[in-house]
Amino acid sequence: MSRIPAAIIGASGYTGAELLRLLRGHPDVEVVQVMAKRAAGQRLAEVFPHLTGVYDLPIEGFDAGAVASRAKVAFSCLPHGEAAPVVAELAARGVLTLDLSADFRLHDAAGWKAWYASAEHPEHPAAGLLAEAVYGLPERHRARIAGARVIAVPGCYPTAAILAAAPLLDRGLIAADGLVIDAKSGASGAGRSPSQSTHLPEAAEGVRAYKVAGAHRHTAEIEQELGLAAGAPLAVLFTPHLLPMSRGILSCVYAAPTAPVADPDLFRRALAEAYAGEPFVDVLAPGKLPDTAYVRGSNRAHVTAVYDPRSKRVLAISAIDNLVKGASGQAVQCMNLALGLAETAGLEQPPLFP
Amino acid sequence: MSRIPAAIIGASGYTGAELLRLLRGHPDVEVVQVMAKRAAGQRLAEVFPHLTGVYDLPIEGFDAGAVASRAKVAFSCLPHGEAAPVVAELAARGVLTLDLSADFRLHDAAGWKAWYASAEHPEHPAAGLLAEAVYGLPERHRARIAGARVIAVPGCYPTAAILAAAPLLDRGLIAADGLVIDAKSGASGAGRSPSQSTHLPEAAEGVRAYKVAGAHRHTAEIEQELGLAAGAPLAVLFTPHLLPMSRGILSCVYAAPTAPVADPDLFRRALAEAYAGEPFVDVLAPGKLPDTAYVRGSNRAHVTAVYDPRSKRVLAISAIDNLVKGASGQAVQCMNLALGLAETAGLEQPPLFP
Amino acid sequence: MSRIPAAIIGASGYTGAELLRLLRGHPDVEVVQVMAKRAAGQRLAEVFPHLTGVYDLPIEGFDAGAVASRAKVAFSCLPHGEAAPVVAELAARGVLTLDLSADFRLHDAAGWKAWYASAEHPEHPAAGLLAEAVYGLPERHRARIAGARVIAVPGCYPTAAILAAAPLLDRGLIAADGLVIDAKSGASGAGRSPSQSTHLPEAAEGVRAYKVAGAHRHTAEIEQELGLAAGAPLAVLFTPHLLPMSRGILSCVYAAPTAPVADPDLFRRALAEAYAGEPFVDVLAPGKLPDTAYVRGSNRAHVTAVYDPRSKRVLAISAIDNLVKGASGQAVQCMNLALGLAETAGLEQPPLFP
Amino acid sequence: MSRIPAAIIGASGYTGAELLRLLRGHPDVEVVQVMAKRAAGQRLAEVFPHLTGVYDLPIEGFDAGAVASRAKVAFSCLPHGEAAPVVAELAARGVLTLDLSADFRLHDAAGWKAWYASAEHPEHPAAGLLAEAVYGLPERHRARIAGARVIAVPGCYPTAAILAAAPLLDRGLIAADGLVIDAKSGASGAGRSPSQSTHLPEAAEGVRAYKVAGAHRHTAEIEQELGLAAGAPLAVLFTPHLLPMSRGILSCVYAAPTAPVADPDLFRRALAEAYAGEPFVDVLAPGKLPDTAYVRGSNRAHVTAVYDPRSKRVLAISAIDNLVKGASGQAVQCMNLALGLAETAGLEQPPLFP
Repeated sequence: MSRIPAAIIGASGYTGAELLRLLRGHPDVEVVQVMAKRAAGQRLAEVFPHLTGVYDLPIEGFDAGAVASRAKVAFSCLPHGEAAPVVAELAARGVLTLDLSADFRLHDAAGWKAWYASAEHPEHPAAGLLAEAVYGLPERHRARIAGARVIAVPGCYPTAAILAAAPLLDRGLIAADGLVIDAKSGASGAGRSPSQSTHLPEAAEGVRAYKVAGAHRHTAEIEQELGLAAGAPLAVLFTPHLLPMSRGILSCVYAAPTAPVADPDLFRRALAEAYAGEPFVDVLAPGKLPDTAYVRGSNRAHVTAVYDPRSKRVLAISAIDNLVKGASGQAVQCMNLALGLAETAGLEQPPLFP
Repeated sequence: MSRIPAAIIGASGYTGAELLRLLRGHPDVEVVQVMAKRAAGQRLAEVFPHLTGVYDLPIEGFDAGAVASRAKVAFSCLPHGEAAPVVAELAARGVLTLDLSADFRLHDAAGWKAWYASAEHPEHPAAGLLAEAVYGLPERHRARIAGARVIAVPGCYPTAAILAAAPLLDRGLIAADGLVIDAKSGASGAGRSPSQSTHLPEAAEGVRAYKVAGAHRHTAEIEQELGLAAGAPLAVLFTPHLLPMSRGILSCVYAAPTAPVADPDLFRRALAEAYAGEPFVDVLAPGKLPDTAYVRGSNRAHVTAVYDPRSKRVLAISAIDNLVKGASGQAVQCMNLALGLAETAGLEQPPLFP
Repeated sequence: MSRIPAAIIGASGYTGAELLRLLRGHPDVEVVQVMAKRAAGQRLAEVFPHLTGVYDLPIEGFDAGAVASRAKVAFSCLPHGEAAPVVAELAARGVLTLDLSADFRLHDAAGWKAWYASAEHPEHPAAGLLAEAVYGLPERHRARIAGARVIAVPGCYPTAAILAAAPLLDRGLIAADGLVIDAKSGASGAGRSPSQSTHLPEAAEGVRAYKVAGAHRHTAEIEQELGLAAGAPLAVLFTPHLLPMSRGILSCVYAAPTAPVADPDLFRRALAEAYAGEPFVDVLAPGKLPDTAYVRGSNRAHVTAVYDPRSKRVLAISAIDNLVKGASGQAVQCMNLALGLAETAGLEQPPLFP
Repeated sequence: MSRIPAAIIGASGYTGAELLRLLRGHPDVEVVQVMAKRAAGQRLAEVFPHLTGVYDLPIEGFDAGAVASRAKVAFSCLPHGEAAPVVAELAARGVLTLDLSADFRLHDAAGWKAWYASAEHPEHPAAGLLAEAVYGLPERHRARIAGARVIAVPGCYPTAAILAAAPLLDRGLIAADGLVIDAKSGASGAGRSPSQSTHLPEAAEGVRAYKVAGAHRHTAEIEQELGLAAGAPLAVLFTPHLLPMSRGILSCVYAAPTAPVADPDLFRRALAEAYAGEPFVDVLAPGKLPDTAYVRGSNRAHVTAVYDPRSKRVLAISAIDNLVKGASGQAVQCMNLALGLAETAGLEQPPLFP
């Protein structure tokens, strides 16, 4: 039986490469088209030498009609602002579309405008689709993803933070006020374009926080989803860091408990209860702590929570691979759900360790 | 249809972990037993936290009878000296055995004694099997591997060096005398036991040669196989290096051409001819050079050769992942051949990049 | 004029090496003796190949009399428990002693017992000296250091955390309750002994928290000093992390302001005011954020603070080199003060960048 | 007594930063001017945050008259082609000039044209100075450097290769024909401008050769100096590699001995003899091998040589810090010689380890 044809648009960055890697082993879906503006005309292996001998596809320029005529599923790896009109066009043509940009993550156009508007895109380019688009975090919105036509694949930092904190808010175990999220990311999160801050001589032996105090756009997405869990809007203090490694996010969420704590393992068990049966989330045994090295290259998330009786505060921790569970792997997981395939199809590779 | 049962003996190191990773996605073979002396009694995920939620096998102590009663294939990741008697016992019980140690790589017992003898093992512990064992480099010995009962999986450095140099020696294009092999390896090649030389603070920002001037045991294996290609015994100058990265070997082979060179692309084309049809060896296009980052996590080898008209010397270069094509991936490739399965089964994952 | 003779005891680890590096360029002090138990009998360059051609001292076994007969200053790099009796013995003989262990950092013996007692040392081995010993953080206790005979050199994490937070507590700008300290350290902080968690293949591409929720002993020291600043005992939630780099600590302190905040730059300016005139603490300009790469190899600390109006929380950040300002450089700074030398003597090397 | 005033032109790159670091501790020379085209108008700490609190100089645009009016010594860190006219202008005004570009390294203009000519600079821009300029490798040309007005500071790869090989050629111990140089460099050698090949996610876990087979311009310089040692022109096969680390070059030189070798330590002892009394070159004890981690941040070179009796070949190895002995440190060493200062002034910092 032939596999379902898929297209990747904006395929020349890391999330595109990661989709190509994951879908290469997918039993039911096959990449038949790759598109990228600047790289159009080249073969994939010229842009991605690691795909030499793996894929022999030409890179095409974008053409929605061409996508619709060949593919049933499309992944858009275009930047925000640029993605929305493309997604709208594909959705209109009946193509299941997974958008890895931020264009459909926030539910209201005002939020998008506050965080993402630019001179070129002062307003959301396809606000009409916002109500329909689903936030593609299966552990939170599995049922809606299953029937979706447009799926907004969550950001990497939000995925990590939400997985750690949301079940504790759901259950009213931690206070919604005063949440602190201290997250550490590998440099691939900055994308494929070289910059001073990812130049190896300057980045290899340093760690820094960046876009602190509400300056990072993922703040909005985190607040939207944690607000849903808490049942009311909330504001978080989110601090992202850049680390001298390629992949991985470790996210520490600090919170106050809502009631006196008798059992220090309460919070970890709440996570275990929330994620029982989840195919990609492992709640670690007591005493074990997440390490990004243990999830690298896989769609898995390792999470735990600990209570500190001295300071009377809770720490929830999660580790993911920012390019897999934080981007392309999650996109494939959502696609599987939307297409009615096995949720884990194409995503069963164990982590690459060491 | 049920999959062929496999056992891994000495499973608590990196080659064991890598076999577990690769076989997890194998369509026809399944790991049913893992054994390790010191770790016996633990669950796999205690020894390898990255396998949390992936495998739920107990680690057993070694028992050849138990292996023979459940598994049709066994991988031995034991150290040299310790491996030979185990391999002999398994072979005697009819289990296809892939030995990742050096015990069966050299064809004569005198060679083993010269390079590997110790107080504990002054003589080869199972010399009777040496004649039957096959050197498991499919690109050189595919036919014999197909019918083998005991396969000696090549060392990581030898795999890289032989892939780069052997076809040039086969064709009489480079001189057998004066071969220099300068190889650079990631630290996983040193195994899982911590040491000063792999202690991150001392290793993260340094590069060094080690075991130079014939002190590294892989020299013997390289010379055996390149001697076969050259048609006569030869001696190489082999210099291994330890680099601040986890995985990968880049091997540079320097040689003199045997005749005046009119076409500088001659050597690269000879490699291309030799490896036409090989599923895992890519000869790069002119102007492209191998990088270990492009083969990481995969069984692929990238090779090329260039001629320098000024110095009148040839440089052949190869890049592999030391734990995959240099160890566990090659073992799986050999197993596939020996069992009559598709040679690429379980090995089709693209490299992990970045 | 001859320089003041100094001895280093327990010189075979990283803080010993760092003292040797810094004192090599000190105009007024010279290392004349190095002692280390296991390395006794070797030359320094055998234990530290980077000192080849730099120092030609023999390593001696410990002998307090020999120290007192030759040195006026001694640095003890022995582990806690082992250090205290040696420090006591040297102090009794009139040697100015800088202890880099934790033995004299906590002011009361009960605190030491709660955090550091072991089967071998159930009680503080020299409790009588606790009252006299000075906590060697010049930015907090300069006057007392100047007259001290025994100086407890602060831990690396405490130095970073206290520099960021104490001035804000001094001034009553942040609440003492609910302080969260999320700190990221290079692997040299784990010392020179190799371990699985610092084995390059496993550490090079991973980040993890460890000893969370009050399990790290530096918690006690942080609380003692921040409690002094706040004017009352307090408890902090301290989370240390291990990062894939050699040197550096980045410390993020999260706090609630004590009053509504009109000027978001208030906290940064408070730091600037506190550290005006400090030779080694730079409060960064608005918009600039600390990076450990910018202080590596130097005794400098880069600090700043930002206010997030959305979450109404304060973030103070500091970056230091854990082996310099976090250990040996601070020891030299204290020695300078105690000996009446220029405070910056021997410490004027700029950071090594990149 | 006031210190000798120095200027740095083209100061915004790594060699500029390194000069600033080294000269900060120089007892007799002081940087009074820094110039850089694009960064003109900024303060040093804006371009180099690690110099916050260390230097408070403004960056000026280039003006030879201004240099001559204030500085007695100038360092040019401009790129080749651009450097030559500036150097000529400064020399004409009587300023001792150390050129860190390649413009005055090759003694004849034809060599420069063959390797460095461009559309913008088809001919050497100041060929008249070539005869006077001195190749600034003190271990080879100390006497001429002492009287020089224009000093061409050697390239990083040439420094490493020449230190390892030249004494063996001087003494006729190795054949001039067939020299192979396999060199491994940290990424700072590529300069401060970000590029795909130094983008941390792609560079952190990979090693590659580049500009192989005579494509790297340092080949010319190596051949010039080794030809002088051999007494006749020669051609080398030079292979540079980029490694996942910031600083350091490890250079392996492979050669055939010119006569049968009775004593395998012959070559190492020849190096020891050659470098006896050299302040910055350490010939390691038998059995010890160079590691770039042991020279990082210092002007030291560690060298050794071993003979492999099996392959009858010699391996000479050197380790340097590419930005110090391979660039700015060597420039300071040359300046000291030219000014009649202590050769080691400003260069006595031990390596930064770990």
